[in-house]
Amino acid sequence: MRVEDLDTPVLIVDLDSLEENLDRYQRYFTQHQIGLRPHIKTHKTLAIAHQQMKRGAIGITCQKLGEAEVMVAGGVDQDVLIPYNIVGALKLDRLVALSRRTRLSVAADSAYTVEGLSAAAHRAGATVGVVVELGVGSRAGVPTPQAALELAQQIAQSPGLELRGLMAFPTSVQTRPLLQETLALYDRAGLPHPIVSGGSTASALSAHQVPELTEHRAGEYCVGGVGHLRRGTHSVAQCALRVLMTVVSRPTPDRAILDGGSKSLSASVIQDGEGSSMGYIVEYPQARFHSASEEHGHVDVSACDTKPRIGERVQVLPVHPCPCVNEHDELVALRQGRVEAVWPIAARGKIR
Amino acid sequence: MRVEDLDTPVLIVDLDSLEENLDRYQRYFTQHQIGLRPHIKTHKTLAIAHQQMKRGAIGITCQKLGEAEVMVAGGVDQDVLIPYNIVGALKLDRLVALSRRTRLSVAADSAYTVEGLSAAAHRAGATVGVVVELGVGSRAGVPTPQAALELAQQIAQSPGLELRGLMAFPTSVQTRPLLQETLALYDRAGLPHPIVSGGSTASALSAHQVPELTEHRAGEYCVGGVGHLRRGTHSVAQCALRVLMTVVSRPTPDRAILDGGSKSLSASVIQDGEGSSMGYIVEYPQARFHSASEEHGHVDVSACDTKPRIGERVQVLPVHPCPCVNEHDELVALRQGRVEAVWPIAARGKIR
Repeated sequence: MRVEDLDTPVLIVDLDSLEENLDRYQRYFTQHQIGLRPHIKTHKTLAIAHQQMKRGAIGITCQKLGEAEVMVAGGVDQDVLIPYNIVGALKLDRLVALSRRTRLSVAADSAYTVEGLSAAAHRAGATVGVVVELGVGSRAGVPTPQAALELAQQIAQSPGLELRGLMAFPTSVQTRPLLQETLALYDRAGLPHPIVSGGSTASALSAHQVPELTEHRAGEYCVGGVGHLRRGTHSVAQCALRVLMTVVSRPTPDRAILDGGSKSLSASVIQDGEGSSMGYIVEYPQARFHSASEEHGHVDVSACDTKPRIGERVQVLPVHPCPCVNEHDELVALRQGRVEAVWPIAARGKIR
Repeated sequence: MRVEDLDTPVLIVDLDSLEENLDRYQRYFTQHQIGLRPHIKTHKTLAIAHQQMKRGAIGITCQKLGEAEVMVAGGVDQDVLIPYNIVGALKLDRLVALSRRTRLSVAADSAYTVEGLSAAAHRAGATVGVVVELGVGSRAGVPTPQAALELAQQIAQSPGLELRGLMAFPTSVQTRPLLQETLALYDRAGLPHPIVSGGSTASALSAHQVPELTEHRAGEYCVGGVGHLRRGTHSVAQCALRVLMTVVSRPTPDRAILDGGSKSLSASVIQDGEGSSMGYIVEYPQARFHSASEEHGHVDVSACDTKPRIGERVQVLPVHPCPCVNEHDELVALRQGRVEAVWPIAARGKIR
């Protein structure tokens, strides 16, 4: 079966491009002796996670417990980091059970989270690894190095827990001083930090500028996306993940409607100099995919020299691959236009 | 089981509120003798579609063929409108097959679409009902009444097709002159228009101001959402669909992180006077759910008198219920806090 035989809209990945990205980033991290811990939230797919591990990843990152359960059950069970505060009795029981099936570390940024983790692990006679989440962005994380130290001390003294270091998101050379200050406090207190975990694809290839990192978490590096294309870290050819769509309407000479909207791409939008964009059309770089309904892609084709016809198919790069993948049940893997596999997106929708 | 026993994030619907919305809108359309044709894309759930039909809906609207297949297979098979250009051999064969299992009408806005429909129906010895899509918004649809007339004539003369009238989206009193002009052209040419289909929840309760409409398509009326709350068509209590979330981090006194982000709510954003919003927190109306990562809801709680604590649960109204529902596999139906059913979101992800 070839790409021409697929019905649209359909999520596709080009294997040559995917594998080149996996090789390229793994090579960088191996060269700099930093562990690469891929974030599976981008692809949510066992086949790609196994490929990442075979290439030398030190383990995987799963944002939610349910994603980790899918990966471990599917044999990606060497080493899992969940960089998330696990809160509530139902999840804590599952977390402790999972910790018996893989080397597992989890993040915490509050005494509340640590107390819950400790009680659940201790009650079950298990040991759960914990890293402190240091707040460096606008998300979770303790607000200061001193607060990180205090939480690390609490973890080190909590039954059922093993302090494993710290993590932050996103990390870059700008966040290095905060990491250094926190690590100095750990060292002065004699606290261990075998894991110092940084993250983000945008800063992945400059991770060596933060030599304190033992590992780096990156997700989107494997497939790129419009943001990475604009930033120059991925060429169009290196943007491996696309949604194949059909032109279903040309209501006016300047407008085209595609059969994929937010239900195929996600509702993610990026802003650039020309306004908002929901995707990049590979065959029509001058076209502007400016907005979408759920099942209609709204494209301005006024700047295109030749314009797409009804019935024609186009490949659209999503602006944000992770939520795009989450809209789909299957990922069609292509090599030179031939369907090599159809992979279930096994961790799709695992929000708990 | 009660709502307190559910793990988070989880999609919930309050049955008293849902049923009151279903009754209220059906009462309006019955009173004005306009057919209500609910758009199932909002709930994607057989149980709610059956309730809509039992209350007097004339049929359902499905944006995609795959959604219609799910509904018809699940017994919602009286009368289905697909207001979408069906293009391509694979879908056309399925469409013709479906037309044998329900009264089916489909939209077209081009000669290309009509030719495809006719060839597939004629080849199979079937008859497919077709309405012309009149462009009144920024989506699909023929650009002028004259173009609608010409396409209607083509449909009327095409083997295997039955001209059934026209449709438009969104309709309101402002679009009435265009509908009237088109219908006058149909009448002058002796073309039938048993279906004159309008649409949108925002204009649903003023559908009587467009007496040409034989029916109205509305989706979100059954559950509301932040847009409808702001517009005043739904009170907070009438916004039946919510995502139950847990506060998992309080990184600073002014910020709270919830365990649901764009993977629970969709990436949909609305803008209002105060900036962007991704949801409305029922228990903390002063809180601002301004942005989200996939699994983190980012909330500014600076304006709240009392502030949410870690471990506390909150109910979040999505800004756009349809893509929110599409992120979930199940919908938990509650009455007065008790779980009455867990409904599979059977048409989720049916993009083809």
